Amino acid sequence: MRPNRLREAWAKGRAVTNCWVTLPGSLATEILAHQGWDSLTIDMQHGQADYAAMCAMLTAISTTDTVPLVRIPSYDFGDINRVLDAGAYGVICPNVDTREEAERFVSACRYAPQGTRSVGPKRAVLYGGADYLSKANETLLTIAQIESATALANVEAIAHVPGLDVLFIGPTDLGLSLGRAAKADQTDPVVVEAIDRILAVTKAAGRRAAIYCKSVEYSKAMIEKGFDFVVVISDEALLSAGASVAAQFG
Amino acid sequence: MRPNRLREAWAKGRAVTNCWVTLPGSLATEILAHQGWDSLTIDMQHGQADYAAMCAMLTAISTTDTVPLVRIPSYDFGDINRVLDAGAYGVICPNVDTREEAERFVSACRYAPQGTRSVGPKRAVLYGGADYLSKANETLLTIAQIESATALANVEAIAHVPGLDVLFIGPTDLGLSLGRAAKADQTDPVVVEAIDRILAVTKAAGRRAAIYCKSVEYSKAMIEKGFDFVVVISDEALLSAGASVAAQFG
Amino acid sequence: MRPNRLREAWAKGRAVTNCWVTLPGSLATEILAHQGWDSLTIDMQHGQADYAAMCAMLTAISTTDTVPLVRIPSYDFGDINRVLDAGAYGVICPNVDTREEAERFVSACRYAPQGTRSVGPKRAVLYGGADYLSKANETLLTIAQIESATALANVEAIAHVPGLDVLFIGPTDLGLSLGRAAKADQTDPVVVEAIDRILAVTKAAGRRAAIYCKSVEYSKAMIEKGFDFVVVISDEALLSAGASVAAQFG
Amino acid sequence: MRPNRLREAWAKGRAVTNCWVTLPGSLATEILAHQGWDSLTIDMQHGQADYAAMCAMLTAISTTDTVPLVRIPSYDFGDINRVLDAGAYGVICPNVDTREEAERFVSACRYAPQGTRSVGPKRAVLYGGADYLSKANETLLTIAQIESATALANVEAIAHVPGLDVLFIGPTDLGLSLGRAAKADQTDPVVVEAIDRILAVTKAAGRRAAIYCKSVEYSKAMIEKGFDFVVVISDEALLSAGASVAAQFG
Amino acid sequence: MRPNRLREAWAKGRAVTNCWVTLPGSLATEILAHQGWDSLTIDMQHGQADYAAMCAMLTAISTTDTVPLVRIPSYDFGDINRVLDAGAYGVICPNVDTREEAERFVSACRYAPQGTRSVGPKRAVLYGGADYLSKANETLLTIAQIESATALANVEAIAHVPGLDVLFIGPTDLGLSLGRAAKADQTDPVVVEAIDRILAVTKAAGRRAAIYCKSVEYSKAMIEKGFDFVVVISDEALLSAGASVAAQFG
Amino acid sequence: MRPNRLREAWAKGRAVTNCWVTLPGSLATEILAHQGWDSLTIDMQHGQADYAAMCAMLTAISTTDTVPLVRIPSYDFGDINRVLDAGAYGVICPNVDTREEAERFVSACRYAPQGTRSVGPKRAVLYGGADYLSKANETLLTIAQIESATALANVEAIAHVPGLDVLFIGPTDLGLSLGRAAKADQTDPVVVEAIDRILAVTKAAGRRAAIYCKSVEYSKAMIEKGFDFVVVISDEALLSAGASVAAQFG
Repeated sequence: MRPNRLREAWAKGRAVTNCWVTLPGSLATEILAHQGWDSLTIDMQHGQADYAAMCAMLTAISTTDTVPLVRIPSYDFGDINRVLDAGAYGVICPNVDTREEAERFVSACRYAPQGTRSVGPKRAVLYGGADYLSKANETLLTIAQIESATALANVEAIAHVPGLDVLFIGPTDLGLSLGRAAKADQTDPVVVEAIDRILAVTKAAGRRAAIYCKSVEYSKAMIEKGFDFVVVISDEALLSAGASVAAQFG
Repeated sequence: MRPNRLREAWAKGRAVTNCWVTLPGSLATEILAHQGWDSLTIDMQHGQADYAAMCAMLTAISTTDTVPLVRIPSYDFGDINRVLDAGAYGVICPNVDTREEAERFVSACRYAPQGTRSVGPKRAVLYGGADYLSKANETLLTIAQIESATALANVEAIAHVPGLDVLFIGPTDLGLSLGRAAKADQTDPVVVEAIDRILAVTKAAGRRAAIYCKSVEYSKAMIEKGFDFVVVISDEALLSAGASVAAQFG
Repeated sequence: MRPNRLREAWAKGRAVTNCWVTLPGSLATEILAHQGWDSLTIDMQHGQADYAAMCAMLTAISTTDTVPLVRIPSYDFGDINRVLDAGAYGVICPNVDTREEAERFVSACRYAPQGTRSVGPKRAVLYGGADYLSKANETLLTIAQIESATALANVEAIAHVPGLDVLFIGPTDLGLSLGRAAKADQTDPVVVEAIDRILAVTKAAGRRAAIYCKSVEYSKAMIEKGFDFVVVISDEALLSAGASVAAQFG
Repeated sequence: MRPNRLREAWAKGRAVTNCWVTLPGSLATEILAHQGWDSLTIDMQHGQADYAAMCAMLTAISTTDTVPLVRIPSYDFGDINRVLDAGAYGVICPNVDTREEAERFVSACRYAPQGTRSVGPKRAVLYGGADYLSKANETLLTIAQIESATALANVEAIAHVPGLDVLFIGPTDLGLSLGRAAKADQTDPVVVEAIDRILAVTKAAGRRAAIYCKSVEYSKAMIEKGFDFVVVISDEALLSAGASVAAQFG
Repeated sequence: MRPNRLREAWAKGRAVTNCWVTLPGSLATEILAHQGWDSLTIDMQHGQADYAAMCAMLTAISTTDTVPLVRIPSYDFGDINRVLDAGAYGVICPNVDTREEAERFVSACRYAPQGTRSVGPKRAVLYGGADYLSKANETLLTIAQIESATALANVEAIAHVPGLDVLFIGPTDLGLSLGRAAKADQTDPVVVEAIDRILAVTKAAGRRAAIYCKSVEYSKAMIEKGFDFVVVISDEALLSAGASVAAQFG
Repeated sequence: MRPNRLREAWAKGRAVTNCWVTLPGSLATEILAHQGWDSLTIDMQHGQADYAAMCAMLTAISTTDTVPLVRIPSYDFGDINRVLDAGAYGVICPNVDTREEAERFVSACRYAPQGTRSVGPKRAVLYGGADYLSKANETLLTIAQIESATALANVEAIAHVPGLDVLFIGPTDLGLSLGRAAKADQTDPVVVEAIDRILAVTKAAGRRAAIYCKSVEYSKAMIEKGFDFVVVISDEALLSAGASVAAQFG
C-alpha cells in the first residue's frame, strides 16, 4: 500500500504542513496539490464541496504525492466510509467532544477487528494499492477535532482512545465556546492556555497534535511549540488577496 | 448584515408569501425569484435538489431580494450548518415532534452562546455581509415543521422553545397522521381543528405561524385566519399546468 | 427500429404538438414528457441545456413514448452527430437560409450513401433498437428553420432539397428580419403573408410544415391552416405563470 | 401502480437476478438495464453515485422494465425518503444488526399507518403511476442487509419484523465479522454455515432471501440452495476484465 | 435595461479594471465579484469553464454590480448567441485578424438591423431587464482580441468596423506571433511598438483600448498610456501565490 | 516536459495499445488507466463525454502514466486548443479528407512558428511540466483519422503534411464510404486493400500508422502487419459483456 507520507514525516521528526481547500473544483485543487504542501484538506463541513466534488478533488490530488485528507460535515458512519472508499488518507471529524464520540469515529475508520468500517474500497484500492484491505488500518489517519469547552474538559479521555491518531485544534470554535473571539491565530490567554493544555495532553498520550492557523508566522510558532501538523492557509484566503489588489485602483 | 425581509414584513404586520421549489436548476429558480414572492423555499426533503444544486439555487435567488429558505431532508447537524453557511436565511426542519427535537434544531442554527452552530460561514458572508457572525442569530429564521399527531400533542412545548421562530404546518403528513386524507388545502374538520389549535398555540407563544397551501384562495383564507406565512404554489404545480394545455389537442 | 411517432401521425393525416424545453433539468423534462405532447424539443440554441444536460433530458423523455427532438445552437457537423448519437429522433437546425445550407444539414443527419453522418450511435441504439444503422435515415427527422428574409427568398430551393423532412417557421426572427415585431403568434400582414408562402411552398414540395406558437388558439389556427407540427408552449411560459399568481398577493 | 416485477417473479416461484452498479453514470446504467437483468442495484454505500447521480441512473433504468433498487450508505431517514421519492422500487439498508434497526428501517419505507415515511413522492409518481400513494406500501421492497456476527445472532428477530421483505446476505463483511476472509462467493465452512442459517430462518419466516455473489456458478448454486435473489456481477467487474485483455499485449 | 457600468465609467473618462477568471466554479467567482473589480471575464478559451459553468458563474456575478464579460473559445455564431442569452454584458472574441472577422463577430452580437443575432434572450432578460431586446445593441460590448502579426497589419481596418466597441490586446500571443517572447507585461521594443500602434489606431477610430496585464504596476502604466480597460490579475495567479507560502516551510 | 511515452515506445520499435473510452466518468476512466494500456482515448465524437467530463477524465488518467489522447467531435480550432490546454498528449481529428484539412488540424495543435495554437496552457503545464511551452510542439501527437473514399484518394498528400504524426484508420466509416459494411475488424477485400494502401503510404512517409480494432486477434494481426498503434477494445464493449452473463439465467 502507498505509505502515508505524513506518518513518514512524523517518524523522521518533521512537522507537516496543510493547505485547506474550501472551494469545490478539481483544477484549483490540482494547482494547490502542486505547490509543495505535505497535505491538502478537502473541507466538507464549512467548505462547499459535496461528495461528487470531493471525489473529483481527491482524484486531482492523486496526480501528485500530496496527502489527501477530508473533513466531514459531522460524524456520520456512511460519510466516513464513503470518504475513505474514495481514497482519503485521513478523515477529520469535527466536534469530537467525548471519549465515546472519539471511539465511534475511530471505529468507523477501521476494519474489523479494530473497528466496524464496511468492506468495499473502490478508488481507495486504485490509489492505495492492491494490499489496501490489509494495511488500511495502519495507514489511514483518524483526526478528531477538539473545538469546545466540553472537548477540552474531556481531552485526556479522548487522547487515549485506541486508534486515534491526531487531535486537531479548531481555534475558532474553541474560542467561541470559551467565551472569547471566534478566530484563528489566537493570542487570547484563555484560549492559548487551552491550546497548550490540549497539546500537552496529546503529546503525553503519544498522539499527534494539529492546529488550524492562518498565517506563516503563527504556523511556524506552533511548530516550534511542538505541533506536528499545521494548517497554514486556505484557497479562500489566497483568492481573497485579490480584494487588496483591486483596492489599489481606487 | 442584510436584514431578513420576512422579519421586516412581520414587524409591519404583513403576512408573507412563499413559492416552493422542488426541481433542481438555477435558471428556473432565478425566474421564480423575479416573480414577486417574498420568499422561495428550496425543498431538499421531497424536492430533488442536492447540496450542489441548492448552492446554485441560493446564488440564483441572491440576484434578487427574495428571501431564500431551505427545507432539509431530515434533522442533521451537518446539513443545517452547510445550508446556513451557503447563505440560507432560514431553515425548515421537517418532522419536529417534540420539545427536544425543536431544541436541538434551534441549537444547530445558532452560534454560541445561544446554540452550537459551528463557525465558518462562507457564501453566507458574501450574501449577508461582513457583520454576519454577530447578527446571524437574530436574523436567520428557525422553522419547525409540525406534521404529525405527536407534534400536535406536543405543540405547546415546541412553541415555547427559546429561539424557535416559526411553526410550519405540513397539512399533508398531518392529515395522514391523523387518519385523514394526505393532501394540502385541508377542509376535513379533524385536520382543520388541528390546524386551528396549532395556530392558536403558536400565536399565544408569540411565534409566527406558517402553512403549506396549494391555491391562492386557501392561502388568502389562511392569511385571514392569522397565518404569517403561506406557501402558495410550487414550481412543479406551475409546470404541471402543461398537461391541461396538451389535453386541448386531444 | 422504434418508429418515429411523428411520421406515423402524419401518415394518418394528424397534425402533431410540441412542447418547447428551454430549462436544463431531467426531472422537469420527465414531467413534461408525461403530459401528452406528441413531442418535446430540447432547445440548445436559446435554451440553457448543454450537451450533458441534453443527454440527461433525452433519457428522461425515453421513459415515455413522447418523441424527442433537439434544436442545435447553430449548424455544426459534430453537434448534429452527437445529438443523433444520443438518441434524438429529429434535429432542428436554426437559420437555414439557402439550399446549400439545407443540403449540408441534411447530409450531416444521414448515413452514406445519402449523407455523411459518421457511424457510432450509442444511446441511439439503446433507444432506437438493434437495427438502428439500417433504418435511421428513414426514421429520423431533418427540420430546417426558416426565419429570415433570405430564407424566405430561397424557400422554394430549400423545400426541394432531398432528404429534408420539415420546414419550421421561426416567427420571431422572421418578423425581425422582415422589419416587423420580433414575436410569436404573428398577425402582422407582412409576416402572415410570408408564413403563408412558406407553408404553400412546403406543402407543394411534399414536405411537412411546422411553426413555433405560444398559445393554444394560434396553434389550432395554424393546424387549421395546414401546418403539420405546432409548438404550443414552453416550460418557461408555464413557469412564468407564477408571476401573475404572486401578483394576487400584491 | 406499475407492479414490482420482482414480486411477480417470486409469486411464480422464480428466483431473480441483479447486476450491481457502483460507477456513477447514466449511460453506463442504461446499457446495463438493457442486458436482461431482473433488477439493478445502484450502490450508494461503496459505489460512487451520489444523490444526483442516483436520480439520473434511476431515470436511465426507467427507460426499460428492469427493477431499480438502491443501497443507501447507512440508515438515514431522510436518505430513505429521498431514494423512494426518486422512484426506487426497493431500498437495501446495510448493517441491519438488530430487530430495532430493522423496524426503524421498515418504518421509514412505509406510509402511515404502517410506517412514518413522509408524503411527497415526485419522480416516483411519474414512474409508478397516479395511484402510487395508495399502493406503495405493498409494492416497494424493504431489504435488510445481514452482514455481521451480531446480525447473525439476531436474525430470527429481524426476520420476523413486520413489513420486512428481504434479508440480504453481505458475505464479505459477514466473513470479516466472523473472523474469516472478507470476500464474496464464500466456501469457508464457518461462513457457509452462517449463510445456511440465515437462509433457513428467512424462509421459515416467509421472507425472501438474497445474497451477493460474484460469479455465475456461485449464483446458480445459491438459487439451487433456495435463494430468491442473487447479485451476479457488478459493472466494476465487467470493466475490470480489460486488465486481462491488456495483459495479452505484455 | 440595466446600464453597462463600463460604458458609464468610460463616459466619465475613467479607465476600468478587470479580473480574469479561468477556474470553473460559482463560489470562487462570487468571491471575486465582491472584490471591487469593475468587471470579471469568464475565460472559455484558455480557462476551464464550459457553458454550464459559465452560466453558473454569470449568475454568481449577478449577485453584485460587477460587469460580466465572457471570452469565447473561438469565433462561433452559436456560442456568441448563447453567451449573450445567458446574460454576458460583453463578449471577447479571440484571434480577430481581419476586417471580415471583426464584422461577422459584431454581426453575431447585434440584433437586426445592425446584425444577425437570433432573438431568444433568457437569463439576459432577468439580468438586463424587460426592455432588453430594444436596448441590447447599444448596451452590450463587442471586444475583438488583437493578438497576431496579421491583426496588427489589419488593425486600421478592424478598428473602423461599425459596432466594434473595444480592441483588446493579447500580448502573449502577439509577442509569439512577432517572434518575441510569449508573455504578458511586455517590455520588448518590438512588441511595445506594436502595442503603441494598436492603441493609437484604436483611439483615433474612437474605440476603447484594452490590454491583458499581470501586475498592478504594468496595469497602471497602461492606464497612464491611455488604455481604457486593463486586466490586472487572474484567479489562477491569486491561487498560485500559495506556492511561495508553502516554500517558506522548506 | 513529461515525455510522450508513445513516442518513446515507437523509438524503441514497439507498437502501442489503446483502450477507447466512450462513457463519461472519472472513476471508470481511472480503473481503465490502471489496466496496463499504453494509452486511453477519450472519445468526444461518438462517446458521450463533454468538455467538463473530459477534463475530469484527463485528471483521472494523470494519476497513472498511461498516455491521454482525445478525439474531438469534428475539426474546431477552439476545441483543439481547449483539449490540449486541459492536458491531452495527442488529439485525434475525425474526417480528415484532404491535405488542407490535415494542415489546418496540425496548425491548430502547434505553437508558432509551426502553427497557430493560442498560448494559455493550464492543466497542461501541471501535467506536462514547467517547460511545456517550449517542448509541446515536439511532444504532443497530431493524429488524423482516415475514414472515407476521399481521404483514401488523398492519403499521399495527407501523409506528407509537415507535423502530422499519425494516420489513424477508422474502418467502420471507411467501409461504409467504400460501399461495404460499416464495421471494425474488416476482412472485406476492398477495405483490406484500402487499409493496406494507407498503411504503406503512411510508413513510406515516415509517419505512424494506427487503426481501430475490436478484438485481440485482429489487433495483433495489425501489429504484425506493421501498425504502430492499435485500439484493442472499448469501455462499452467491456460493459456489454454483461448481456451474455445475464443470458445464462434465461
